[in-house]
Amino acid sequence: MTIKDTLSTGAAIALGSVNATATERTPADSEVWDPEPVHVATPLNAAPSDAVVLFDGSGLSEWESVQGGECPWSVADGVLTVVPGSKDIRTKRSFGDAQLHIEWRTPIYKEPKIGQGPGNSGVFFQERYEVQVLDSYENRTYANGQAAAIYKQAIPLVNASRAPGEWQTYDIIWTAPRFSQGGGLLSPARITVLHNGILVQNNTILAGKTEYLVPPSYSPHGPGPLMLQDHGEEVSFRNIWIREL
Amino acid sequence: MTIKDTLSTGAAIALGSVNATATERTPADSEVWDPEPVHVATPLNAAPSDAVVLFDGSGLSEWESVQGGECPWSVADGVLTVVPGSKDIRTKRSFGDAQLHIEWRTPIYKEPKIGQGPGNSGVFFQERYEVQVLDSYENRTYANGQAAAIYKQAIPLVNASRAPGEWQTYDIIWTAPRFSQGGGLLSPARITVLHNGILVQNNTILAGKTEYLVPPSYSPHGPGPLMLQDHGEEVSFRNIWIREL
Amino acid sequence: MTIKDTLSTGAAIALGSVNATATERTPADSEVWDPEPVHVATPLNAAPSDAVVLFDGSGLSEWESVQGGECPWSVADGVLTVVPGSKDIRTKRSFGDAQLHIEWRTPIYKEPKIGQGPGNSGVFFQERYEVQVLDSYENRTYANGQAAAIYKQAIPLVNASRAPGEWQTYDIIWTAPRFSQGGGLLSPARITVLHNGILVQNNTILAGKTEYLVPPSYSPHGPGPLMLQDHGEEVSFRNIWIREL
Amino acid sequence: MTIKDTLSTGAAIALGSVNATATERTPADSEVWDPEPVHVATPLNAAPSDAVVLFDGSGLSEWESVQGGECPWSVADGVLTVVPGSKDIRTKRSFGDAQLHIEWRTPIYKEPKIGQGPGNSGVFFQERYEVQVLDSYENRTYANGQAAAIYKQAIPLVNASRAPGEWQTYDIIWTAPRFSQGGGLLSPARITVLHNGILVQNNTILAGKTEYLVPPSYSPHGPGPLMLQDHGEEVSFRNIWIREL
Repeated sequence: MTIKDTLSTGAAIALGSVNATATERTPADSEVWDPEPVHVATPLNAAPSDAVVLFDGSGLSEWESVQGGECPWSVADGVLTVVPGSKDIRTKRSFGDAQLHIEWRTPIYKEPKIGQGPGNSGVFFQERYEVQVLDSYENRTYANGQAAAIYKQAIPLVNASRAPGEWQTYDIIWTAPRFSQGGGLLSPARITVLHNGILVQNNTILAGKTEYLVPPSYSPHGPGPLMLQDHGEEVSFRNIWIREL
Repeated sequence: MTIKDTLSTGAAIALGSVNATATERTPADSEVWDPEPVHVATPLNAAPSDAVVLFDGSGLSEWESVQGGECPWSVADGVLTVVPGSKDIRTKRSFGDAQLHIEWRTPIYKEPKIGQGPGNSGVFFQERYEVQVLDSYENRTYANGQAAAIYKQAIPLVNASRAPGEWQTYDIIWTAPRFSQGGGLLSPARITVLHNGILVQNNTILAGKTEYLVPPSYSPHGPGPLMLQDHGEEVSFRNIWIREL
Repeated sequence: MTIKDTLSTGAAIALGSVNATATERTPADSEVWDPEPVHVATPLNAAPSDAVVLFDGSGLSEWESVQGGECPWSVADGVLTVVPGSKDIRTKRSFGDAQLHIEWRTPIYKEPKIGQGPGNSGVFFQERYEVQVLDSYENRTYANGQAAAIYKQAIPLVNASRAPGEWQTYDIIWTAPRFSQGGGLLSPARITVLHNGILVQNNTILAGKTEYLVPPSYSPHGPGPLMLQDHGEEVSFRNIWIREL
Repeated sequence: MTIKDTLSTGAAIALGSVNATATERTPADSEVWDPEPVHVATPLNAAPSDAVVLFDGSGLSEWESVQGGECPWSVADGVLTVVPGSKDIRTKRSFGDAQLHIEWRTPIYKEPKIGQGPGNSGVFFQERYEVQVLDSYENRTYANGQAAAIYKQAIPLVNASRAPGEWQTYDIIWTAPRFSQGGGLLSPARITVLHNGILVQNNTILAGKTEYLVPPSYSPHGPGPLMLQDHGEEVSFRNIWIREL
């Protein structure tokens, strides 16, 4: 079982100087020059230069109603706000694996807050998989239904919620599920979420499409739109951008 | 192969109402109330309330020299700066899985920048695994040695570098390697890095401890300090905090 | 980024001599003596000494009807055979992760074989997850429903079926799904199947409980019985053993 | 967060009838007919019809010396035996992911057996990664160096060794490591081993190339030969076949 000189012969099969023996190695042997990563500008409080800007304060050209037709939500003062009853909206483009940045704000409540009521909305990847948006600041609901939960699937690691009226951020790394040619599940969807900069979902596995009543399950699909939910609350959004991975 | 009534009997083995059939199910069946996530405050430009604050502008009580003794780097104007030649520093505490936030700034160069020279430093997890710090703004070096590279292991997805003199951020999710009782590798270390808010390492697998000359390899170990590198350059740091996962 | 003498200091944190530097290392440094694996006898055509013998040719004490009561299938000439209409059977014991060996034989058909008819049965792990048993020798059916399919989830890599009347083997490595305290899916079930010694499922991910009509989904559960299916065909079994992993 | 009618609209994006709602679904919706798995014959005690037969009792055309030139080991009575001192042998073909079947027999010892001495040989995948072959029947050595160990990396789950002079089998599922274009480790090698039909390595992660003295590490490489080791002992082999996965 000792690795004798025969194996160093074998090593010569592999790639160039990386396989030089320790005695011959120079630091340059482990330098890799290509590919050179593309430069991306990262301005403060704005989208990076390689992102698809979904909303930067004006214009809804990236969005449509899920019922078809123009995006029915309102834009004022650089902020996109749900028009309750107007239905969900989704991007015209479809995405698979992606990094998403989105900022959101729930309205201030005068009456006592109750459970799923205040500031309810949601961010859906591929139009199926929801990260919950909710006013979860001093507002108890079921743990797998509060802000930053993978709705009815995964409880956030901590509750990083800010108060209603304050802007909050989600930075999300989304890995789409993979399906075989025959439609079988090759790998489930995975998600990492930073809520206000705090890790709340750590490469969490999704068990399937978000469901309200039945257990989640997968049906094969390709890339899909990002969807934002109208749940009857005037939740606002700003500075939305996505980068395909 | 059809799943007959026998299987629904079997399902009764599982947990409570989750296994109710679709016709009987109510939305409450899929609500999970416990555990309730702990609330964490997330002030702007400061550490979250549950973090270990490693540096907030004053005081070096969390740090020591890797040679033993007090931290030899300088603090001025709320900024921690390498004192070239004073050696690396490390935290007194040890960490395993963790989320790290750190801000860094490389000095402005008057002479032409060359490769690994300008602004070279590094962030080491468990005192072994390095995320490169370098002035990689309009400064070509080997791709697996530029800023946000896992040094000599993994090229960043993009180059999100800002110019020297500007503050930059790393938000890092670190998953420590696991070893068997017998010292075998059960799972390699994994890392996700956002550089200035941009995903540059996506759950990247590490092949072992960072090495300069030889290929990286694993030797079993437990939690370890966070280490910052003195590579002879006056690199500055601020707003450093870590959360154990 | 170079790993200087500081890091070798760091290495001293890790376990003993494993971290000796290359120049000091001896071959004994990488020897691990404990734990010593337990010896298991592996007689030809019989269960290994550490297995739970589920059927060795006589006796049904390990089995019961899924309807409750004694196992209603027949034993003759050392072979266990389905009594059509008597319902499925399951082990009295429950299992999680396991290695299963089972031999099966489908009856010889006089009439033309059609799809799911001939020799239909199934092996269910944790009473939920089915590996199909079928006469798939020169008998076309849907690919995710033939012998060695994860029923309606995963097509076998090849069709390793022997003719009806011949004994066939399954050697299966079953990894149970894991659920969080809150019932979320931490990791899906995985299965590796050798059919007549040939790899037909290679660490395949299951999307959930086997379903006939709807997409598979997970509901949290613990260990469960092994179940064999009565699908109205006189399928026979022998030499059944299982090892908990 | 409730999934309203908008989502069922979204579901129409996905593949055909698989997304029909439960009320509309028929069993045929979840049948997948293509691709149809190829039939493979599985004769008893011989290679399956789709395997590369590496040794079936006569002929060494698949093998060569690792020093170049013809395979220097002996063939007699349908058995391939190490000629001590003649050096290791390897296949002329290269393989990546593969299923390997190999039978081996260690010689009977008259003197007391000691550690790594009796019946020492090894099976190397891609000429780098060793599954130990040793007479580990009533012969204590370091646990990560006994039969079925991933040499100096992973202890077998149990000791399934038969006595010297008896034939033993390895059925191995090998998953090659993956490397990025830049030479980084994308995923480590994994191995599953059945020793005499018993699971002894369960999707074990390898930390790198087998090493005798230093910790294992990865250097990027492509497919490579299967190698058998001459460790100075007259170990015999028979019925060797491999299937590319």
